[in-house]
Amino acid sequence: MKKIRLLTPGPTAIPESVLAKFAEPIIHHRTSLFEAEFRILQDHLKWLFQTKQLVLTLTCTGTGAMEASVAGLFSPGDSVIVVNGGKFGERWTKISKTYGLSVEEILLERGKSVGLQELENRILANPNVKAVLFQASETSTGALMPVKGIVDLCKRHGMLSVCDGITAVGILNLPMDEWGIDVLITGSQKALMLPPGLSFLAMSDRAWKAVEASRSPKYYFDLLRERKMQEKQQTAWTPGISLIHGGVESLGMLRKEGLSSLFERHEKLARCTRAAAEALGLELFSSSPSPVLTTVKVPSAFSVDQGKQIQKIMQEKYGVIITGGQDELQGKILRLSHFGYCDVFDVMTGIGALELALADLGYPVTLGSGTGAVLKAYRET
Amino acid sequence: MKKIRLLTPGPTAIPESVLAKFAEPIIHHRTSLFEAEFRILQDHLKWLFQTKQLVLTLTCTGTGAMEASVAGLFSPGDSVIVVNGGKFGERWTKISKTYGLSVEEILLERGKSVGLQELENRILANPNVKAVLFQASETSTGALMPVKGIVDLCKRHGMLSVCDGITAVGILNLPMDEWGIDVLITGSQKALMLPPGLSFLAMSDRAWKAVEASRSPKYYFDLLRERKMQEKQQTAWTPGISLIHGGVESLGMLRKEGLSSLFERHEKLARCTRAAAEALGLELFSSSPSPVLTTVKVPSAFSVDQGKQIQKIMQEKYGVIITGGQDELQGKILRLSHFGYCDVFDVMTGIGALELALADLGYPVTLGSGTGAVLKAYRET
Repeated sequence: MKKIRLLTPGPTAIPESVLAKFAEPIIHHRTSLFEAEFRILQDHLKWLFQTKQLVLTLTCTGTGAMEASVAGLFSPGDSVIVVNGGKFGERWTKISKTYGLSVEEILLERGKSVGLQELENRILANPNVKAVLFQASETSTGALMPVKGIVDLCKRHGMLSVCDGITAVGILNLPMDEWGIDVLITGSQKALMLPPGLSFLAMSDRAWKAVEASRSPKYYFDLLRERKMQEKQQTAWTPGISLIHGGVESLGMLRKEGLSSLFERHEKLARCTRAAAEALGLELFSSSPSPVLTTVKVPSAFSVDQGKQIQKIMQEKYGVIITGGQDELQGKILRLSHFGYCDVFDVMTGIGALELALADLGYPVTLGSGTGAVLKAYRET
Repeated sequence: MKKIRLLTPGPTAIPESVLAKFAEPIIHHRTSLFEAEFRILQDHLKWLFQTKQLVLTLTCTGTGAMEASVAGLFSPGDSVIVVNGGKFGERWTKISKTYGLSVEEILLERGKSVGLQELENRILANPNVKAVLFQASETSTGALMPVKGIVDLCKRHGMLSVCDGITAVGILNLPMDEWGIDVLITGSQKALMLPPGLSFLAMSDRAWKAVEASRSPKYYFDLLRERKMQEKQQTAWTPGISLIHGGVESLGMLRKEGLSSLFERHEKLARCTRAAAEALGLELFSSSPSPVLTTVKVPSAFSVDQGKQIQKIMQEKYGVIITGGQDELQGKILRLSHFGYCDVFDVMTGIGALELALADLGYPVTLGSGTGAVLKAYRET
């Protein structure tokens, strides 16, 4: 018998009561029954996004919602600034170029966060830029971005702030209306504890004005059409009905926990993971570590191949699935996720499997030092 | 207690064994476990599409796959012919115009199928047209299109045949490779007996060549990127993992039934429904009725409001959900679906509820005449 445990940045583990919802018969979307369910989901989403705006539900994964934002807000020839701190920042650039935008890219060293002075300088040098596109937490490197600072700069300079919160909403405190975030996005398979297949997107009044003026081609991702329908608890196209059904349950669970507990839990799990990394002598990769996931460097004595082995052994021998580095970071970092349906014992289990894998590869590890550090940090905070 | 029964053109009812799959823990997509499952699904899809081509799985509903085809195959300024026989034909036109294509539209009277002579005349008058976009079965009117004839004309004139088979694949015999269909599309919530959220798309070698030459903007729907990944049992973006997991079960069921039984079953259910309509004195709306769903005219004595009442009473009083007409056909037709996880007793139940609703509205009906006709037609065929 081997139990499989997901400590991955999406999909994350799904609560049993949510899984049970998926075994119920499907309902038809053009019915009052669906509309009543969708209304509850919409209300939960407003709570989660901390906004009075309608939060749109799109039947696609997060990348689709990123594209819907770019195609929705801009027209060919428009200029945007992209904060490229990793694979997901790079995705903003690629999507923007696909739609003929002119991209001013702030290319960060992997693992680093963006400096607000650097951003302001770039804004001042490019006064025609319409928006800044960025991640709240860059999942490929584990770096936290200064969301409030970025949004404040955008407001001061009359630019839209477009925030990929795919792995951040429900983990970090991102009060959309209070801070004035213009576009905020998340996906179902992240903090929302659902399978992948839905993404969620909210826009400020300013952003909606930009949408009304955009001339980029889109049909499936036509946000004005979606808004019109979703205001009446319907969707432009057949939606992911089963995920919406499960979402009423999973978001209900989050709401019961409460926003401040939710943010505290994730902050605490991050602290436990960082303490374990330190106890195991593993260096943090990011200089501004995110509460979403903790990235650690593979021990310097390890080759890239050995680095990949850690993840492989954890998965194949111990059933604990984590992710490693992507692209040029393959075999060089480990990404330890601690969000979604995740508590201190899940984090401890991940660290336990990491200790075993390191020991298997001959790394000098005192078994229990990492897991002990998790418990100690848990108790202290 | 009220049982709810779906006799709708998507979502259709989902088999219990498939629903049970959705209650299982989710797996991570970047694992060999996922790749092994996806390989089985891909193999089932090739069988279902009757093709040797890779059938792509996209995490969006059918409209997304239609857009992926248009954005994938063409460049702004290209010309296409659209067979517009209803709401879904019209969708081809709208998507094509969104991408700056020049559209030659064959606008059919609602309920009619396209004449091959009419299509050939239009092709001859527009020799620069690159493709003909059409539905195999126009779900808004219940009209069956002459797919083989359309495809033959396209081949003869060097045009691509782009077939929306969303409510046709797995119901009608559409041997993609044998007939030379260039693009074939379906969706998860149709004959595949899954919740909505995935669509499936296969292309001929000729169509892939067109994809390589296209200059239309797309990112989430980048088919070349998907092909490259799906050839290795991976996807460009996080896929709808849970639906893929369920799809292994539901497509396995279809495969066990076998293609010829599948097509025979649907043909038989259509015949039963048409017999019931005749017995109840309800006129067929389409002059070329589809085996997918049967559209009947609301009795001529009924007002549009009374027409809408039939569907409403069936749903609210009897729990049987059918669909009525859309847009200008609202209150004028009823659409009785008989595909997916559907057998003769489901069809009989739908007809039984229709008889009761008609009687409730004062229509002269001999209770049991429709259901009897279903059983009689079943026995005779």
